Amino acid sequence: MAGLSPDLQTPCLVVDEAKMAANIDRMARRIAGLGVGFRPHLKTAKSVEIARRMLPDMGGPATVSTLREAEVFAAAGVRDILYAVGITPAKLGRVQALRARGCDLAVILDSAGQAQAVAAASAGAGPIPVLIEIDCDGKRAGLAPDAAEIIEIGHILHEGGADLRGVMTHAGGSYDVSGADAHAAFAERERRAVVTAADRLRAAGLPCPVVSVGSTPTALAARDLAGVTEVRAGVYVFFDLVMAGIGACAVDDIALSVATTVIGHRPDRGWILVDAGWMALSRDRGTAGQAVDQGYGLVLTADGRVIPDLIVTGANQEHGILALRPGAAATPPELPVGTLLRILPNHACATAAQFDAYHVIPADIGAAPAIWPRFGGW
Amino acid sequence: MAGLSPDLQTPCLVVDEAKMAANIDRMARRIAGLGVGFRPHLKTAKSVEIARRMLPDMGGPATVSTLREAEVFAAAGVRDILYAVGITPAKLGRVQALRARGCDLAVILDSAGQAQAVAAASAGAGPIPVLIEIDCDGKRAGLAPDAAEIIEIGHILHEGGADLRGVMTHAGGSYDVSGADAHAAFAERERRAVVTAADRLRAAGLPCPVVSVGSTPTALAARDLAGVTEVRAGVYVFFDLVMAGIGACAVDDIALSVATTVIGHRPDRGWILVDAGWMALSRDRGTAGQAVDQGYGLVLTADGRVIPDLIVTGANQEHGILALRPGAAATPPELPVGTLLRILPNHACATAAQFDAYHVIPADIGAAPAIWPRFGGW
Repeated sequence: MAGLSPDLQTPCLVVDEAKMAANIDRMARRIAGLGVGFRPHLKTAKSVEIARRMLPDMGGPATVSTLREAEVFAAAGVRDILYAVGITPAKLGRVQALRARGCDLAVILDSAGQAQAVAAASAGAGPIPVLIEIDCDGKRAGLAPDAAEIIEIGHILHEGGADLRGVMTHAGGSYDVSGADAHAAFAERERRAVVTAADRLRAAGLPCPVVSVGSTPTALAARDLAGVTEVRAGVYVFFDLVMAGIGACAVDDIALSVATTVIGHRPDRGWILVDAGWMALSRDRGTAGQAVDQGYGLVLTADGRVIPDLIVTGANQEHGILALRPGAAATPPELPVGTLLRILPNHACATAAQFDAYHVIPADIGAAPAIWPRFGGW
Repeated sequence: MAGLSPDLQTPCLVVDEAKMAANIDRMARRIAGLGVGFRPHLKTAKSVEIARRMLPDMGGPATVSTLREAEVFAAAGVRDILYAVGITPAKLGRVQALRARGCDLAVILDSAGQAQAVAAASAGAGPIPVLIEIDCDGKRAGLAPDAAEIIEIGHILHEGGADLRGVMTHAGGSYDVSGADAHAAFAERERRAVVTAADRLRAAGLPCPVVSVGSTPTALAARDLAGVTEVRAGVYVFFDLVMAGIGACAVDDIALSVATTVIGHRPDRGWILVDAGWMALSRDRGTAGQAVDQGYGLVLTADGRVIPDLIVTGANQEHGILALRPGAAATPPELPVGTLLRILPNHACATAAQFDAYHVIPADIGAAPAIWPRFGGW
């Protein structure tokens, strides 16, 4: 495979450095054009090497989805991190430990109970910064922008000794709609939700310096972010088939794939068996509800060309079943046992999580193949 | 949580040692009653500590699904291993390296091309043992029991210098049917398929000392294994909701769970949000097609009691959404932020793979909590 070690052991995770760099550059230019700050989400890649490329400055700002991410990236020099999953009391010790080591780690919450716990922990070891989570699309957590609890929580935090830093939201619903107009509409829902909540906090005499929004589709489509101070996004670093299916990228932009080897055939069924099953690809079937169902992934040649209509139609733990998509006119290609292939993932976050390293196709054709470690856990 | 550290960081993977021991004992007694050998599959647990409990003798025999499993378990003393995924030429170097270190590692294949590659590698560094893979239910790989290629492959291996050791099959279809009678029928399909193939090899003057079958449901339900020399099974060590859904175990037998913490509520929607999303639970929805759809898992109290009708109805990367199952008469329980819960997985192999350690509830109530490492990769 071009740019990769010839004795590659499959399945393994492959990142195309040139495509990744183009994706990073595209998002950076988008955000700069909107005139707001950018806080990349590092949960997709979970890699210090890739964080160095996503963050213009390794000091941050950055977003994470687990405290282990915060710990690893703080150790690598990131000093401004938002942990963007609702905090629990039992995690505040790790938050304070990271803050004591010089990392400005902020948390999010959406209830008075959490706010009381954070205020109590702040009284002990210094003010913990908090964003109040706002719901903009009914998909997950957060308070409605007009909820009375926002002001209640604001007072608990501000008067209880925590650092009330602002509000944040995430339009997970933007993944369920297709096209720039629909994504722009979700971006406006994000903006309106947090700006409304921020205005209410300020009207109540409470501080709200940070107004944070974001998802990859809304970040790429937003037209006006008046009142917003920063955008968060993560999966854009690789993109994936789900993002391509909603028009946030082209299939050719996808920088992540799983390298796999043909291990057998069932010509009676039109199957080609490979050594990437769901343990490698993940069980994510995010394209199942889209206009084009890509099965467990779309198949490429080893050098990255799409094999027309060949998808992963089934997956066991260590076996993938390749077949032509239903209704395809093509004939299955000749792919003898031992043939190297690559598979584009439905969901980059889920597929990358199945591996502990990235095999890098270098952007510089003359460069040596690289392997970048990846971590998981909590 | 009883038997676990009070400062547990969630989500984390929990194993109930007493339930696991009972599952191991149940399977051992079943196989002994059938009068055949047992080759436990170590792919579910991927843990040296748990392999020590699954294998009556740490020397083996054992089954694995990746060469990394073979390497880790060989280093821990296992000396008789079947790598039960179709071999590719590029993996033969690692196979030979393990064999050179004293591990009797056998491979499987189902094509003349693979057989030629294995024979060629055997000529170089000593005979590699091979089982020919037989298909018994059309679910995955393998040759039909009456396929002419079986004899062709047998000759390539035997005369080419490999060690033709026998035949194997796996009735993945047994996971799709419910009840002991249906599982016993699949066990008989497994038996008949490999015994037919073995008889044909022997009639052609070829050796076939090993006749290997197995899956957890068929191993637990088989009534007669005449002609079979060994059974393989793996998921029985923990069991899971899929196995309970087809009647292979009771929900109370399930030894694996994910500990999680309540992080918020959406009373308007009847949701309880927890810090175990699909990154912790996996995307496996194996009960979706069963009589009782358990969502992404069934919720327990921290000490292991089922909370009636509370399941994980939705999952984001680090958020799980708990709600009553559709049509449930119960009212959602009061579970404040910070409450510890546990979630039984649909598929133990998939959920365990999301973690790098087991938090053990010791069988001995007075024992200290233990943490057993777990590995992944290929």
